[in-house]
Amino acid sequence: MKQIIECVPNFSEGRDKEKMEKILDSFRGKDGVKLLDYSNDINHNRMVVTVVGEYGPLKDAVLESVGKAVELIDLNHHEGQHPRMGAVDVIPFIPIRNVSMEECVALSKEVGEEIARKYDVPVFLYEKSASAPHRENLAAVRKGEFEGMAEKIKEPEWKPDFGKAERHATAGTVAVGARMPLVAYNINLNTNRLDIATSISKKIRHINGGFRFVKAMGVDLADRGIVQVSINMTDFTRTSLYRVFETVKFEAQRWGVTIAGSEIVGLVPLAAIVDTAEYYLGLEDFSIDQVLESKL
Amino acid sequence: MKQIIECVPNFSEGRDKEKMEKILDSFRGKDGVKLLDYSNDINHNRMVVTVVGEYGPLKDAVLESVGKAVELIDLNHHEGQHPRMGAVDVIPFIPIRNVSMEECVALSKEVGEEIARKYDVPVFLYEKSASAPHRENLAAVRKGEFEGMAEKIKEPEWKPDFGKAERHATAGTVAVGARMPLVAYNINLNTNRLDIATSISKKIRHINGGFRFVKAMGVDLADRGIVQVSINMTDFTRTSLYRVFETVKFEAQRWGVTIAGSEIVGLVPLAAIVDTAEYYLGLEDFSIDQVLESKL
Repeated sequence: MKQIIECVPNFSEGRDKEKMEKILDSFRGKDGVKLLDYSNDINHNRMVVTVVGEYGPLKDAVLESVGKAVELIDLNHHEGQHPRMGAVDVIPFIPIRNVSMEECVALSKEVGEEIARKYDVPVFLYEKSASAPHRENLAAVRKGEFEGMAEKIKEPEWKPDFGKAERHATAGTVAVGARMPLVAYNINLNTNRLDIATSISKKIRHINGGFRFVKAMGVDLADRGIVQVSINMTDFTRTSLYRVFETVKFEAQRWGVTIAGSEIVGLVPLAAIVDTAEYYLGLEDFSIDQVLESKL
Repeated sequence: MKQIIECVPNFSEGRDKEKMEKILDSFRGKDGVKLLDYSNDINHNRMVVTVVGEYGPLKDAVLESVGKAVELIDLNHHEGQHPRMGAVDVIPFIPIRNVSMEECVALSKEVGEEIARKYDVPVFLYEKSASAPHRENLAAVRKGEFEGMAEKIKEPEWKPDFGKAERHATAGTVAVGARMPLVAYNINLNTNRLDIATSISKKIRHINGGFRFVKAMGVDLADRGIVQVSINMTDFTRTSLYRVFETVKFEAQRWGVTIAGSEIVGLVPLAAIVDTAEYYLGLEDFSIDQVLESKL
């Protein structure tokens, strides 16, 4: 079976079309690599790329894109609303099919080592690839951003995993790591009471005693006159979409509130959809390989 | 978006490995065509191939496989349990993604015309491609099999759609057509009473007043001590899996019987799984293109 690894590199350029195209070309017309999507935001001045591929070809394409970004982007002249610490800000590798998390961690380390060696950009390993617990969270690693990194990187606890303890003059630093696929999943409630959405969010999210792989908050959908439990599923293989849906449903009953519907934002791995169908239909011995499209 | 057409040709050779491999080679190593699966049955003396592809490349590969089968298989020496009327018995084309039923009908007609012209094998169009209602059903077309076809094909109502009204001396005749994807879907009941499974089957199947695209029968699963409603979903885009599942569930309640589980046999299009998840999670504005694997 073909191996599928997803990579979602974030580049600190969301305005100059020519530069963005040069970076994107690293992912085009290559065997074993497929550019699925990209989106740039002018306010954020950032481009998020979604690409899938096999181990070797994906590694080569990502390294090529980093080379172009280092050449084209100067963080000294970069401004935008999104926090950033490098020309390539973050490179997550995500196991999708026939590949383990361990292999994605190994890939992230190979890519990190090469980035430091070839381009002289210091690398922090984060998430599952982190070399210490305080480096797992991207926000903690990036704190201080490009400007603050000049000093932060000299502190012993922020010594980079690869490269010298010195910020690249124009390209800054980059975080590279492996993580589970995220699913952005929202559940809409038939009420306009934000306090109910907030209360339910607290019951289901990890930080307040809820499910381990759930982040959640209440959001007001003023235009529809309803509220939403807005969820980030950080590992749907262990905390299932249907389990969160059913829990929100029975918690809402407590206020006599029903579910208006739910929504998945952006891409979702096939395994999450199959998991849902398996639960509700009580499917016995079903394999994702039985889905015709999984064989393509 | 890439076009995906499925084709499931049935060849009347299930024993001679060398001949089967020669036929299968028609589908290997070609751009725009992918061999997904094949299975041969010694008792049936038949091989069923599952291949997907785009219009042009799929047409060429299927024609090549027909040429090989006509060359290698002699129906005068064929025996097996499965009814058959030709070296290639039947060639269904099935729309999977970004392709209409009309295009699959057009493809089946082009392929049928070429088979008659190049290989001198008479062709009956069936299912959605049929030229008359009495030719829609494959069993009706095939009745009499290879042996009976020598005379049957001379009757005015069984004049072939392409080719002369004369059976090919060794390769017989072939049915070519377009049809919807079938889903083999079984629902297991927590009872050993076959009469309950049979009764529910009659309530849900088209012929007795049930859903339009459902065929069903009760089956005894003696080894598990339970019974099963065994279903063929002939168009899941119009009669959904979840609707049949929920109906069987509430009908079984009438006898105080619960659902033990359900099973999907063989391949299932992604759209059927997405449809199920959409219903149970009440997904708003979800598109099949959001499933990561659908983009590969």
